[in-house]
Amino acid sequence: MGASNMAYDEVTTAMATSNIALTKYWGKSDESINLPTNSSISITLDEQVGTRTSVLLSDRISKDILYIDGVREDFRNPKEEKVAFVGKALALLREMSGTDANVLIVSENSFPSGTGLAASAAGAAALSVALSKAFGLTLTQKEMSIIARRVSGSGCRSLFGGFVAWEKGGAKDGSDSIAVQVANENHWPEIIDIVALISEKKKRVPTTEGHKRTVRTSEHFAISPYIAEERTFRAIKAINEKDFNTLAEITMKDSNRLHAICMESYPPIMYLNDRSKAVIEAIHGLNDSMGTNIAAYTFDAGPNPHIITTRHYKDKVFSAIKDILNGNRVIVSGQGSGPRLLAESDSLIDIDHLRPVNAPKAEVRNL
Amino acid sequence: MGASNMAYDEVTTAMATSNIALTKYWGKSDESINLPTNSSISITLDEQVGTRTSVLLSDRISKDILYIDGVREDFRNPKEEKVAFVGKALALLREMSGTDANVLIVSENSFPSGTGLAASAAGAAALSVALSKAFGLTLTQKEMSIIARRVSGSGCRSLFGGFVAWEKGGAKDGSDSIAVQVANENHWPEIIDIVALISEKKKRVPTTEGHKRTVRTSEHFAISPYIAEERTFRAIKAINEKDFNTLAEITMKDSNRLHAICMESYPPIMYLNDRSKAVIEAIHGLNDSMGTNIAAYTFDAGPNPHIITTRHYKDKVFSAIKDILNGNRVIVSGQGSGPRLLAESDSLIDIDHLRPVNAPKAEVRNL
Repeated sequence: MGASNMAYDEVTTAMATSNIALTKYWGKSDESINLPTNSSISITLDEQVGTRTSVLLSDRISKDILYIDGVREDFRNPKEEKVAFVGKALALLREMSGTDANVLIVSENSFPSGTGLAASAAGAAALSVALSKAFGLTLTQKEMSIIARRVSGSGCRSLFGGFVAWEKGGAKDGSDSIAVQVANENHWPEIIDIVALISEKKKRVPTTEGHKRTVRTSEHFAISPYIAEERTFRAIKAINEKDFNTLAEITMKDSNRLHAICMESYPPIMYLNDRSKAVIEAIHGLNDSMGTNIAAYTFDAGPNPHIITTRHYKDKVFSAIKDILNGNRVIVSGQGSGPRLLAESDSLIDIDHLRPVNAPKAEVRNL
Repeated sequence: MGASNMAYDEVTTAMATSNIALTKYWGKSDESINLPTNSSISITLDEQVGTRTSVLLSDRISKDILYIDGVREDFRNPKEEKVAFVGKALALLREMSGTDANVLIVSENSFPSGTGLAASAAGAAALSVALSKAFGLTLTQKEMSIIARRVSGSGCRSLFGGFVAWEKGGAKDGSDSIAVQVANENHWPEIIDIVALISEKKKRVPTTEGHKRTVRTSEHFAISPYIAEERTFRAIKAINEKDFNTLAEITMKDSNRLHAICMESYPPIMYLNDRSKAVIEAIHGLNDSMGTNIAAYTFDAGPNPHIITTRHYKDKVFSAIKDILNGNRVIVSGQGSGPRLLAESDSLIDIDHLRPVNAPKAEVRNL
């Protein structure tokens, strides 16, 4: 690492995309540096579900300024997780680069944040990439992984394309709790994620509080991470072998495990709603009718279903769920290829006026 | 036991009432005789949520006949659990009494069956009492307990009034898996159960199938019964000490445990709906506002909330949930005193025509 080449008065812009976990991260062995109680595995999504972040260092900026989705945020006094994350990233990278330059950060999500679509993961990855570049740091993948993880746990899984495992590691300082690519986006490109936005309301129990409450109060949590760990290893094997039937079963079971330990926390954390459950039943019905798993549901900390399937079965899945999702927005995401730096023309910062330019939202289709 | 005094050509009628479990029975170590994987504790409810069963032995009856809630049922070819239970009871008690007399059985529930209101428990208890009397058997409480348990697991808990524990026992033949009264209905009469019938639809996954699926597929089930066992012992202590705050916490946590292991079964079993969850949140909100637990929710295999509280706080509970339950039927049940034999005038059988007479339904109030 090094901070030889700080980018003064020019905008650095990075894009990173969300990821959907097939085995879930829920529960921390160290809250301060986001060490997970189990390994997890995810699919990196495409740029329809991504975050673009522009960073500007300039002597013309008298204090750090942050805009997220067009709204000015105060990360010294964060009321939301997504704002607190920026403060963490800035503190970490400022320490590594040894600079005290002020920054203007402008971040745009291509989808509603706080709805269990892992906006924080995309945001943490985009910010880690953009900010480290702006600060002139040349980081190894491992260093970048540790930063993104410390900013927002599952953010480290958004640092690669395709299928990504987050190994929980064993070191107390988290030095081996890092993301590794299991297979890139060209290994099994048939796999897609259908995301249905059945609710765009914010989740009631924020993720950070949810992790804590489960670790503190769930009795089943005494064994739950071992179950996830074993599933993660089997999922890697299923991905290598392109065994969709097995991968789908692991995915559905581990989603159910997450929502079960949430239910068993006290007070219970309930992210799924009646329509989420209708999707679960529809997917089991579809798989039963096919005699093998052709689709898998999975839910993060919110009611919106992700349905992992193949391009071949996309229309069958749509038919099975269209009555449940009638009128809701749906995103069909292929696999992303990991974060990338964008050209000057993609900057979100109006450099003359030190304010955001407008960024277009992701296209979505109505089902 | 003995079968010296068979009741020919006279109707035997028994009433037994439902019970609501504070720690839950879910999972069997022996399916054939309903041995539970953990002990449980319940409150016997009053006769608003009960089953009345009349039995007639007569030479005029050429084969066994069963009516439940006015509908003729074929228990040699049962399509529903409640019908299969009758066949079990009849086989068991016929064997004990050594008779092959044909019977006419008429059973009426005072509430909709199959909605998680433990109709099967009341039915099993009423049937065991009426049938053993009609067959001239003089059974000990322990013998009766074993019969009711074999007919419908939690049925044994409806054999006493007040607070009742079902001890899981250790014997392979189930000879020590019996119900015992922890405290009768006069020990802590302030305790009531507010039952809200937010759904009168039948549950999708029948209880028997649910038990099996959880034991077979839930990974958390490896430790879950130990949690319930420990809670059952603490609940008995809380009942003896009239410690409502502790009893309420145990009750809510064990309800959540049940629905968590259901969620974690495969395919997941989901009994709660959005309104159930709204009640859960409302009760936590109410308890938080009071600084102590004044109410506890608990759910069996269905979406209908049971809210355990005291008479003193009944109106506060109503206020907290009335917007959620608007328009639904509500039953406020005190504690029942256990099964009893009824007079000839309460018979459900038209002895001349060998058919049911009509039985009135329970009164309910609209909230």
